[in-house]
Parts: sequence; C-alpha cells; structure tokens
Amino acid sequence: MVLNLVLQNGGSHRGAWRHSSAKLDEIHDIKYILKLAQKAEASRIDSLFIADGLSIEAKAVQHGPIFGFEPLTLLSSIATVTERIGLIATVSTTFNEPYNVARQFASLDHISGGRAGWNIVTTGVERTAFNFGLDHLPPHTERYERAKEFTEVVQKLWDSWEQDALVQDKAAGIYADVGKVHDIHHQGTYYSVRGALNIMRPPQGRPLLVQAGASDEGKALAAQFAEMIFTVQPTLEDAQLFYQDIKSRTVSAGRTPESVHILPGLLVIVGNTEEEALEKASELRQLGPIERSVMSLSNLLGMDFSIYSLDDPFPKLPEPEQVNAYQSFHKMVRKIVDNRTLTLREFLDKYWVGSGQLRVAGTAEQIADVMEEWFVNGAADGFNVMPQLASGGAEDFLDRVVPVLQRRGLFPTAYEKPTLRENLGLQPHALAH
Amino acid sequence: MVLNLVLQNGGSHRGAWRHSSAKLDEIHDIKYILKLAQKAEASRIDSLFIADGLSIEAKAVQHGPIFGFEPLTLLSSIATVTERIGLIATVSTTFNEPYNVARQFASLDHISGGRAGWNIVTTGVERTAFNFGLDHLPPHTERYERAKEFTEVVQKLWDSWEQDALVQDKAAGIYADVGKVHDIHHQGTYYSVRGALNIMRPPQGRPLLVQAGASDEGKALAAQFAEMIFTVQPTLEDAQLFYQDIKSRTVSAGRTPESVHILPGLLVIVGNTEEEALEKASELRQLGPIERSVMSLSNLLGMDFSIYSLDDPFPKLPEPEQVNAYQSFHKMVRKIVDNRTLTLREFLDKYWVGSGQLRVAGTAEQIADVMEEWFVNGAADGFNVMPQLASGGAEDFLDRVVPVLQRRGLFPTAYEKPTLRENLGLQPHALAH
Repeated sequence: MVLNLVLQNGGSHRGAWRHSSAKLDEIHDIKYILKLAQKAEASRIDSLFIADGLSIEAKAVQHGPIFGFEPLTLLSSIATVTERIGLIATVSTTFNEPYNVARQFASLDHISGGRAGWNIVTTGVERTAFNFGLDHLPPHTERYERAKEFTEVVQKLWDSWEQDALVQDKAAGIYADVGKVHDIHHQGTYYSVRGALNIMRPPQGRPLLVQAGASDEGKALAAQFAEMIFTVQPTLEDAQLFYQDIKSRTVSAGRTPESVHILPGLLVIVGNTEEEALEKASELRQLGPIERSVMSLSNLLGMDFSIYSLDDPFPKLPEPEQVNAYQSFHKMVRKIVDNRTLTLREFLDKYWVGSGQLRVAGTAEQIADVMEEWFVNGAADGFNVMPQLASGGAEDFLDRVVPVLQRRGLFPTAYEKPTLRENLGLQPHALAH
Repeated sequence: MVLNLVLQNGGSHRGAWRHSSAKLDEIHDIKYILKLAQKAEASRIDSLFIADGLSIEAKAVQHGPIFGFEPLTLLSSIATVTERIGLIATVSTTFNEPYNVARQFASLDHISGGRAGWNIVTTGVERTAFNFGLDHLPPHTERYERAKEFTEVVQKLWDSWEQDALVQDKAAGIYADVGKVHDIHHQGTYYSVRGALNIMRPPQGRPLLVQAGASDEGKALAAQFAEMIFTVQPTLEDAQLFYQDIKSRTVSAGRTPESVHILPGLLVIVGNTEEEALEKASELRQLGPIERSVMSLSNLLGMDFSIYSLDDPFPKLPEPEQVNAYQSFHKMVRKIVDNRTLTLREFLDKYWVGSGQLRVAGTAEQIADVMEEWFVNGAADGFNVMPQLASGGAEDFLDRVVPVLQRRGLFPTAYEKPTLRENLGLQPHALAH
C-alpha cells in the first residue's frame, strides 16, 4: 500500500481551525510543519503532498487558512530536514513556463537526493486568469492540450543531460562531456524551447509525475504520464470502476499497470473510540460555514451560487461542454442533483462535505478496515490521506492507523531505497539517447 | 560594513575547479553547500547570494560548473539550517510572472523568518529568449520598463495583506479580516494583475530588493527600488564616482542615501603570505580556458567573437544603441578598446579576467586594507565577496579576513536582529493603507 499525506495548513476540514483541539499558532509555523514532516518520515509515509492555487478570493480569507506556503519553496525546506520521504509539489501548466518548472523540480530533486514529484494541474478557477493578464481561463480542452505539451517539454529538458555527462577531468580541462548535453529544439503548438536545461540530470532521471484530473482529458493525460494519481471516490464501487478504467487506459498508452499508483482521497478522523471520532466529526460539521461551501462550489463549477437562496431548489446546471472549470466535478454533481429534488442547503449538507471524497471517522482499526477493503478489492493502490483535524489530526493517523496497517502486513515498516521512484517500485528513468 | 557572500558552484574563477586544491565531489554536493552557509552565518555574513541564468550553451559545459541549483529552491533549503543570514535569489523579470515571483519570495520570507532578498535582473543573454518561445530578447529599454512595472506589481502583491490581517477568532469564526486583504487591480502597460496575493504579508513586509544593472536604465531602476546594489568597479576612483552617482540618484528618487547599500564585487584569493596568494592567482590564470572567455564575452556583448582569431586586432564594437545585451558592460569594454591597440587575446589576458571586478590576492591583512580603503573613502558600503578558489576559497575568507575586519571594528561580530532588513539597518516595510 502506498500512502501519501496531504500537508494542509490547519487540517483538511474547513472548520478544523475552529475545533477546540486546534492550536492556532501551529497553522503558519514552519517549525511545526518541519516536525510533522519528520514524524511522517518516521512512520515511513511514501510522500508528502502540497496542494496549491494561484489566486484567492479576498472575502474567503475570513473562513479559514486557505493560504499557506508556496509548494516548491516549502518542500525544498522540508527536503533539508528529511532523508527518504517523497516531496510532491503542485504546479500549474497554465500559468508557468516549462523551462522554469523543469529547473525547479530538477533542483528540488538534486536537493532532496531524488525525492521530488510534480502534481500536474491545469488550474480550473476562472479568477486565477485575472492574476496573469487574462480575461478568462483558456478553455478546458486547450488547457489539457497545453498540459500535455508542457509536460513533454519538461521531460525533454530533464532528459537533455545524459546520466554520465559529468566528467570532471582536471588535467584535460573537461568538466562535462559536450556530446552528452543536448539542446532539445522543441517546436510545438504552444511552446518553443531550445534547451538544454542548465541543471544536470536529476537523481531520479525524471521526478515523479502525479495527476488528479478526472475529466476525459485529465484521464488521458494521466494514462500518458502519471505515476501517481490522486482521485476523489465516494464509494468502493466508484473507486473500482475508476481503478479499472485508469489501469486499462494506462495499458492502452503502452505502459504497465504497475507503472501508475492510484490513490483515492481519504478524509480521516481518528478516535480512541468510534463515539469519540463521530463526536469530533459532528463538531467539525458545525464549524464549517455554509457560505464558504457555496464559494467553493461556485469556483469548482464556474458559476455563482451566492445569488440563490439556500432554501431554493438546486439550480439547473449547464451542459458539460459549456463548463470551463472542473468538468469531472461538474459531472459528479449533475449525477446527484439530476435524480433528486434537493435544495442548495440539502445538497451542501448531504453531498458536499469533503467534495465527494471517501470519509472515515472511527478507531484506528475501523479506518484500517476500510483501507484494507479498498486495497484488496481493486479500488486503490493506496491512499491520499487528508486528516480532517488541524492539530493532532495527522499525528493521530501516523501514531495509530499506520501501525495497524503495518501489523497487518499492508504497509512497509522501512524505506528500502533512497529515491521516491524506487520506493514506489518504479525505476529511475533511464535514457536511450 | 555589509558583506554578501556569493555562493557559486566551484569558485568564481573559471579555472577554479581545475586547481590542485579543488575537491570535485563538493561542487554539486548539497551537504557541502549547507555547511558552507552555516559557516558563513557563524562569521556573521549579512547575506548569501546566488546568481542565475535561464539558459546554457551546450558547448560551454566542458569548461566548468556553470550550472547548479535553482536559487529559490536552494535558498529555501539553506533557510532551514540557518537562523540569521540573509538569502538573496536572482530571478528574472523578463521570463517570469509577477504573481508567481511575489509568492515564491513571500514564501521564502515566511520560511526563513524574514531573510529573503530578490536580485532583480532583466536577463541580457540572447539565447535565453529561445527557451521561452521568443526569437529575440525584448529590447533593452523594454526589458527595463517591464522590470519596473513587474517590481511595482510584486510590491503591491506583498502589500495586499495588511500586517494585522490575521484574526483567528475561533468563536466568531473569523480567520482573517476581509477588510485588510486587498485586491490590487493593477492594469499597466505590460501586466494586468487583480490580486490579492494568496500568502500572508511576509515578515519583512517586503523582501529586500537587490539590483545590479549599471546601464542608465539599470541605475534608474536601482534608484527607485534597490536596497542593495551589486556593482563591478575595477578601481577606487571608478567606485567613488559610481557610489556618488547612485546615492544622488537615490535621493532624487525621494529616498535617503542610507536606504541603499552599494557593494562592489570583490574577487578574492587569501594566502598565508602574499607570495602564496599570488602563486594561487597565477595557477588559476593558467587554468581558465581562453575559449570560455571568448564565449562569455560574446554573451555579454551580444556578438559572436569566436569568428575572430585571437591574434587579430580587437574587432570594432557597434554603437551602444545597437546593442541588446549588457549595455553597461559594452560601454566599459569600448572605453578600454577604443583608446588602445589590442588583439583579442591581449584584451582577454589583461582586462577580461574577472570582468572588470576589483581583484585582490594577498594576506588577510592586505585584503582587509583594500576593503577598509574603499569603505572609508566613499567607494563602498560593503562588498559582494566572490572567492576565486573552489574548495577553501570561501572558508579562507571567512576564517581569516572577517576576523581582521572585526578586530578593526569595521564589521560586526553578531547579528542584532532577526530579519535581513533590520540587520542592514533598514526598517521592515510598513504599510499606509
């Protein structure tokens, strides 16, 4: 089983910072984050993941700590105090240049000794466009076409240095072998990049590629590139269908099924007893303001829900092809609301919390049971663990759930290799020049 | 006196890696770099600086380690193992987006507790354009116009969060004060950015702004923004003129003369005796290949010198307004070659080494003498120290020269404040919203 831990300021639940257990001074404290990273490594978590966005709605800041550190800088910092845990940063292909992205991940990979991963996102929040000189997001299809070409360019740049290009021959005065450093001469639809990269080949050959898009375009991108997939799956059956779909698309793209690890999100609350866990969950539900959920729903669906009353019927959604936001999320919501008579409030209460993720509140054994069930029944290669609570939420998972998984033989007790790629059973990316 | 140490893979001299003292396994070793950073902090060096470029000429890799880590990731790593030393990263305004740059520096400032600095460059190497979808660099004037607007946008983004925006009131459910987080609504010639930043106000208010351009446009930019200036000055007299020019431009721009620290570059080789230092210098001169100097000259002047024989007369240079590379460097070279009959080889031998920087090879006392002379005679507020040798070059400066400066009362023995800005005698940037 592969476990990725989401590092999120103040817990993954919107109301977590308001919970009685939350220590407010930890939320933006780099020292706390570094200690948590070390603790995750002591539990042999495969990787840490930092989500990201490139905009903020000023009025949203009142509802919680949705702003934090920038992923590449934070993970470079964490790299220095850890030795084996993987470090996965979210970076958008829509609002960056491939040369810069290739360099920063190559640098993080060198700094960490081969532990960098890149979560490729295309950014579906319309407002982000306004921070980059655009009036609108590029259309969904174009964003994914760009992402595909962008990723290809980044791979070419990582590959532009052969493994053994470094010579360091003092007497001959040859530092690196000119014949093993290649301009890439990429000329595509969206990008023109000559190369070579001005950083040597990363220790992993290529940093790990991670993907979370679930639209058809997202899945096609994942099948081509992704070595780890984060996905939102509410039930075992949904997860199994997704799992089979992705594995077969990966095979169709000419890759082995083992070359991609599928990790459904797992929203988790650990209790000493089931009652304690459910009580925490119930307390959290009271603390997340519904206005904030309306804002998130608006962002994800690309339409303004704040103009409706909470007790109005859920408004009619546009056709998928008219939506330039998160298409897969749009489909999921339509499936729910098309077959039911729901008010906006009812939808948010019943279906929204956790945006459709698998949620488990219970004892360590109960949580391990669910994880085991999904894992052995072809629904997951592991989990993208999102502790709901702020202070103690991640620690409880590491201290209590991980040992149960290890006792059951589901999760390893030690890193066997130095690089992220190798610890996931993948090979360092070799070159055939 | 303010001292900035340049962290450069393998020493600042092109031939340093070939020197008998160079330990080749240190050059790309993150652990060595982290240790050196800690050693610099133990010597109370004000800041570490990492130069940068966004391209590489494949054939140049044979001549030495001109490639290394990317500055923001490397400095985030260094931030974690140090507590007081400043961290200055070079980032180009021509090949980045202001929203991304504002975020990464804000994040580094949070990670380091207020020690981030940004060396603003416009990038004058034509080849870089090819890595970013362009056929040519934007013209010199446009690059500086962009740099000015870019920096203004970044400042607005840093200022978009008021100091006390964070509320964290659990009972009221107010995390941050919506009235203290402001969209910036920037609409300029080159950039349109709505804001706000999605990271809280950096600990320094604004990370330190650093500049090194020496053309008229560069000096105008420096007068408006720069709090630290790196400059290339071969003689005391040149440095005094530059110093007066910049201080008076700074005053004309409505700032105090103390608000900018002028740091000429200092290429340094420390010996136990003068003879030993001169011998090292002479050994280095033999090791730097002249072809590499021809390549650098070509890049800096934006014309190809490899087509000339080394024993031909130095070719005629175009008029300054026809040059779209490093204009100030072009002027400096013209001043030298217009009044002399020189071959290309003679120019490179006599004038090129160190690109016109102040160079001192000698004992610690001799080096301190030169630094003191410049410092007390209005030529420098401190120095941008570039150890010429790889292994031991920086260590020798820290172990031997710094104590002499401290004994003479020219350089402090301890950091007094937590932030870079405060240790330089500058105030954290306050806001008047």
